[in-house]
Amino acid sequence: MPTIVVLGAGVSGLTCALQLAKRNEHAVTVVAKHMPGDYDIEYTSPWAGANVLPMALEENSRWERRSWPELRRLAIEVPESGIHLQKARVLRRIKEEEAAFRGPLSDGLFVPDPWYKTMMDDFRELDASELPEGIRSGCEFGSVCINTVVYLPWLVGQCAARGVVFKRATLKHISEAASMSHTGRKADIVVNASGLQACRLGGVMDATVQPARGQTVLVRNEASPHMMVLSGCDDGDDEMVYTMARGVGGGTILGGTYQKGNWEANPDPNVAVRIMKRAIEVHPALTGGKGIEALDIIRHGVGLRPVRAGGVRLEEEVIDGTCVIHNYGHAGWGYQGSYGCAEGVLELIDGALAAKPKSKL
Amino acid sequence: MPTIVVLGAGVSGLTCALQLAKRNEHAVTVVAKHMPGDYDIEYTSPWAGANVLPMALEENSRWERRSWPELRRLAIEVPESGIHLQKARVLRRIKEEEAAFRGPLSDGLFVPDPWYKTMMDDFRELDASELPEGIRSGCEFGSVCINTVVYLPWLVGQCAARGVVFKRATLKHISEAASMSHTGRKADIVVNASGLQACRLGGVMDATVQPARGQTVLVRNEASPHMMVLSGCDDGDDEMVYTMARGVGGGTILGGTYQKGNWEANPDPNVAVRIMKRAIEVHPALTGGKGIEALDIIRHGVGLRPVRAGGVRLEEEVIDGTCVIHNYGHAGWGYQGSYGCAEGVLELIDGALAAKPKSKL
Amino acid sequence: MPTIVVLGAGVSGLTCALQLAKRNEHAVTVVAKHMPGDYDIEYTSPWAGANVLPMALEENSRWERRSWPELRRLAIEVPESGIHLQKARVLRRIKEEEAAFRGPLSDGLFVPDPWYKTMMDDFRELDASELPEGIRSGCEFGSVCINTVVYLPWLVGQCAARGVVFKRATLKHISEAASMSHTGRKADIVVNASGLQACRLGGVMDATVQPARGQTVLVRNEASPHMMVLSGCDDGDDEMVYTMARGVGGGTILGGTYQKGNWEANPDPNVAVRIMKRAIEVHPALTGGKGIEALDIIRHGVGLRPVRAGGVRLEEEVIDGTCVIHNYGHAGWGYQGSYGCAEGVLELIDGALAAKPKSKL
Amino acid sequence: MPTIVVLGAGVSGLTCALQLAKRNEHAVTVVAKHMPGDYDIEYTSPWAGANVLPMALEENSRWERRSWPELRRLAIEVPESGIHLQKARVLRRIKEEEAAFRGPLSDGLFVPDPWYKTMMDDFRELDASELPEGIRSGCEFGSVCINTVVYLPWLVGQCAARGVVFKRATLKHISEAASMSHTGRKADIVVNASGLQACRLGGVMDATVQPARGQTVLVRNEASPHMMVLSGCDDGDDEMVYTMARGVGGGTILGGTYQKGNWEANPDPNVAVRIMKRAIEVHPALTGGKGIEALDIIRHGVGLRPVRAGGVRLEEEVIDGTCVIHNYGHAGWGYQGSYGCAEGVLELIDGALAAKPKSKL
Repeated sequence: MPTIVVLGAGVSGLTCALQLAKRNEHAVTVVAKHMPGDYDIEYTSPWAGANVLPMALEENSRWERRSWPELRRLAIEVPESGIHLQKARVLRRIKEEEAAFRGPLSDGLFVPDPWYKTMMDDFRELDASELPEGIRSGCEFGSVCINTVVYLPWLVGQCAARGVVFKRATLKHISEAASMSHTGRKADIVVNASGLQACRLGGVMDATVQPARGQTVLVRNEASPHMMVLSGCDDGDDEMVYTMARGVGGGTILGGTYQKGNWEANPDPNVAVRIMKRAIEVHPALTGGKGIEALDIIRHGVGLRPVRAGGVRLEEEVIDGTCVIHNYGHAGWGYQGSYGCAEGVLELIDGALAAKPKSKL
Repeated sequence: MPTIVVLGAGVSGLTCALQLAKRNEHAVTVVAKHMPGDYDIEYTSPWAGANVLPMALEENSRWERRSWPELRRLAIEVPESGIHLQKARVLRRIKEEEAAFRGPLSDGLFVPDPWYKTMMDDFRELDASELPEGIRSGCEFGSVCINTVVYLPWLVGQCAARGVVFKRATLKHISEAASMSHTGRKADIVVNASGLQACRLGGVMDATVQPARGQTVLVRNEASPHMMVLSGCDDGDDEMVYTMARGVGGGTILGGTYQKGNWEANPDPNVAVRIMKRAIEVHPALTGGKGIEALDIIRHGVGLRPVRAGGVRLEEEVIDGTCVIHNYGHAGWGYQGSYGCAEGVLELIDGALAAKPKSKL
Repeated sequence: MPTIVVLGAGVSGLTCALQLAKRNEHAVTVVAKHMPGDYDIEYTSPWAGANVLPMALEENSRWERRSWPELRRLAIEVPESGIHLQKARVLRRIKEEEAAFRGPLSDGLFVPDPWYKTMMDDFRELDASELPEGIRSGCEFGSVCINTVVYLPWLVGQCAARGVVFKRATLKHISEAASMSHTGRKADIVVNASGLQACRLGGVMDATVQPARGQTVLVRNEASPHMMVLSGCDDGDDEMVYTMARGVGGGTILGGTYQKGNWEANPDPNVAVRIMKRAIEVHPALTGGKGIEALDIIRHGVGLRPVRAGGVRLEEEVIDGTCVIHNYGHAGWGYQGSYGCAEGVLELIDGALAAKPKSKL
Repeated sequence: MPTIVVLGAGVSGLTCALQLAKRNEHAVTVVAKHMPGDYDIEYTSPWAGANVLPMALEENSRWERRSWPELRRLAIEVPESGIHLQKARVLRRIKEEEAAFRGPLSDGLFVPDPWYKTMMDDFRELDASELPEGIRSGCEFGSVCINTVVYLPWLVGQCAARGVVFKRATLKHISEAASMSHTGRKADIVVNASGLQACRLGGVMDATVQPARGQTVLVRNEASPHMMVLSGCDDGDDEMVYTMARGVGGGTILGGTYQKGNWEANPDPNVAVRIMKRAIEVHPALTGGKGIEALDIIRHGVGLRPVRAGGVRLEEEVIDGTCVIHNYGHAGWGYQGSYGCAEGVLELIDGALAAKPKSKL
């Protein structure tokens, strides 16, 4: 049975481990410094919203396209996963429209007549009467919201139920991972799902990876329609406007920022006020028309999206004699591309294993 | 269908909600300020270790006795719950032996020839050769460790899958809960699982409830036997020594303290060093014989155990016309008594509903 | 030379030490767990605003009356102390007027025709045209604002320049203080300026001392008139409205709360928003008429005022053979009563030393 | 009277402002986002130890050479400044000796027969009997320790007493500073003492500036000799060993780290344990021979030294029509070079003003 070590327990690592474990053909170990239940600035996944708002351009849409069916299925059939169906509204402002929607976060989300209109449920353009002030146009479709603090432990549980073994460890070099399989054997494959740490991890040290800092406010308030995102805002190019309501009592996430190169782990109190102000401007129902003092804050959050200059890195590399499958650099689309990328990882693993002399397995 | 609102989403509230939901006879809403995924000093459950070390004297052992079978079953049959089997060692020091084991945390755990010896798996007294220095005697038995950051979301998921609805809200008075059922109807029953907040919640204001502050260190290191607890320590009557290894990569919890009346939310750095020093003294394998600098700290933690002077309050009270079933004051045994207390709650609910005029249901 | 140990380095302890040192007749040691430069929830002084707004009723006004001249002198003659002159406006709302101004913080501040009108500079009743909406009446007078983060280190420096020796230590019992003089001799007198810790300190354990939690927001914005205080607010009996601008770039303090029995060390994010909202309502110039998003937050703060049920304790007690002069329980008037209370302490010291057999000195 | 705006209130900005104010020939405004009393990761000065341990090679020693006399004078004549005399021991390990002392922090400190031996008081080489284990050689000399939390407010006070005006503001571009003089006139000169923020400040954006993260532990324990520094340590090239005892009750600083490019604001708990372990290894008197559990921790700290690739930038530049004198990039020697660099700044100011047409002044 081939021995596989997955490095990293964010959404990318856990999804790869789960999809591998479902095959029941590999001995899978997840090695991670941080695990679900941790809130650490080095560990991005729990800080995500999260939801599905397709961001890729059509030519790069495979990862998102291949993830959506499974996320949708979980929302409908597996409520204990913490995923639930939610309507999304994408609002296009005049300013970004004039710039052809070339913003920091996404190329594909805001363009008119998007490729994803045939993929997402019940896609429709919004009527002018449905647009908040300052919005030129928009669309609505059925999507999902993922309550990350339920979904990540659920992934761990599903892996555990299928025999995946978890180990906590702090690695300095990726080559250490190969010797950490619970089988005691050297791993045939190491999956590198180290996220932002790919820029610091020995043997990888990818200098094109950097953080895009996202600050959020989580509140108890809820309002329908829950999920909204604007193409930009007037408080600066590195600030954003979006909301989504996490299921099973998870509260509503108000976002956000997209601050490239900013490593600051602690919430900026001034940014927090601006996020709340913008949220109720586009979403007055959150506070029944009152000011931000009527928001009931659960906590302020900061996560560092792992942006890679050339986009996600999904490829094989032999490092110090170990076959490494890289799967990192997902920026802000880690959840919505998780199953697609895991599929890509499994293909690469199959290829790598097929190329190996049989005796070594 | 009777309408029930459970106030509080700690282990007590969630277990009550789950056991109610399994009957499929009630409309259950959980109303909570804090939910799994939150780390807030007002919310004790995620900060617990947690494990099963029976603390009650035999005459009060019902809650623990009736919880153990289900926790054991989950460890064996439901790995995705985050509970797993683990050997426990209970170590009795000379000093506490001379005081007949009347410590702050427990009366029943350390007494020789305990009632639980027939309940827990493979109970045996330790051989003298197995005792660390300074320990007079001890016992070993099969128990479970509960990775709270997986188990609490799992409880939420199981509830959700059975139709329980979750609502975030900050209540000032318990009477507000009755009107918060997702059915829109006034609740027939409110279950008060407000934990430590019972001392502040309007309509309850139980002045006999206070915190017993527990500080912990969570580390990546692991060592066998994983779970150990001493009857006391030399660093003061409000400090303790215990360790347990959470499953599925949850790290090892090092404890701890039992500081009555202390509300301090932030870890005391000096207490933290003492906890680590004591842990490796009784458990040298944690660091392979090295000093505490060889511990790999995940994070420092503080939780406030909800101690009630007269013990747990499990009873019915009519407040402002609503039938309230209290279930709070579990001190340090909330998890290990959770199913037993939920059983008690369900009995009280049945009695209360039976006493109601049918037309009201 | 009599040997004196002052326990505590808040404003009360430091002022006593300084006034003693000015006499040049004692060997003075300050023993403290916390010192200026620390921000610790156990250490209240740096979290204060601070300013002079007389709170006592006339019959208890000695401490404030005897402090004002020195604080005023420092503002005028010693700018490096971090104290500067500032106009204060006291605003009386209808609601509290009807309750005869019996609020949590003060009896004397809001009463019409107050005793302090002859003490403070340029006292005058406000004209109706000067009153913000919802305010029935108010007064204005010349006061001072104290930038605590400059003033406390200045006190330390003034003490040091006069030979006071500082020692860091964590005491469990007040009797330990007597042996901590830098002279090596047992102290003749211990001054107990332990503030809120008086409720926990061995040998004192004053159960009538508890916190009145004060939360603040410090902002970069400034506006004239700088200092304002309202008699109450609509957000609850434990919330307040006040502002003051600290000198030498200290920013503007926005307050606040007065939450008795609340030990929470961390800022409540919802309270913070309410504080900011109220501040700009009564003080629109702070943001030039914009919303709270135009406040530039430096940091959120929490301090625990040491409230004593019977008022300040300024008296002698012999504990374990040591003469202790208590000076604690100043609630929210520690700064504005500091020199008066130090005068009282010096009188008690003189009396105690006079009563001692000469040979012991 | 020429109008000068100093941007930044760290030790560099404040010292420049003070030296300017002493001339009584300029209208000086200090504009700063952060001021003494703040603990913000963007604001390095309060996190420094600080002390005088000459680091430059002789050819670059002007800044340190010209600062020492004033720092020494303050320690002797001005105790209220928070500076006091302290013996320093510099310990050279075999490993770094073999590498010719080319470490991250310093070139000049550890070299044998250093240039500073004639500058510092009572310089002598240590006798072999005085060397801790593992140390090849070392020297001792009279230096000073600066209690930064007293010294920085003292600088503010001295400036204020000489008419300097302080303004809080958050600037996006250095050109905004010119219009912020309290005189209302456009500034003739802007002194750029923005420290690490020089890498982000509009108009400067110096990409060669980055943090060298320094983590420390401040403890109540004291031991003689107080000040010690080693040339390296075995826990990695980015970790260090040094101690110093701040005066007037400031506690003892245990260091540290020198992590280039690391922006993490929060203390790493594992690094903290290593720092404490190393401190008592070389300095057993700190705990009387006990382990690190006998350290009484005040707090953990993190400061980001502003390192500039080419060394300090002390030069004139005209930006958007304003004459800017840069004074940033002091890495770990900001305090010990502060008066020398201020002297350099004043020379540049004099040159710039002399070159201006008279009418403009």
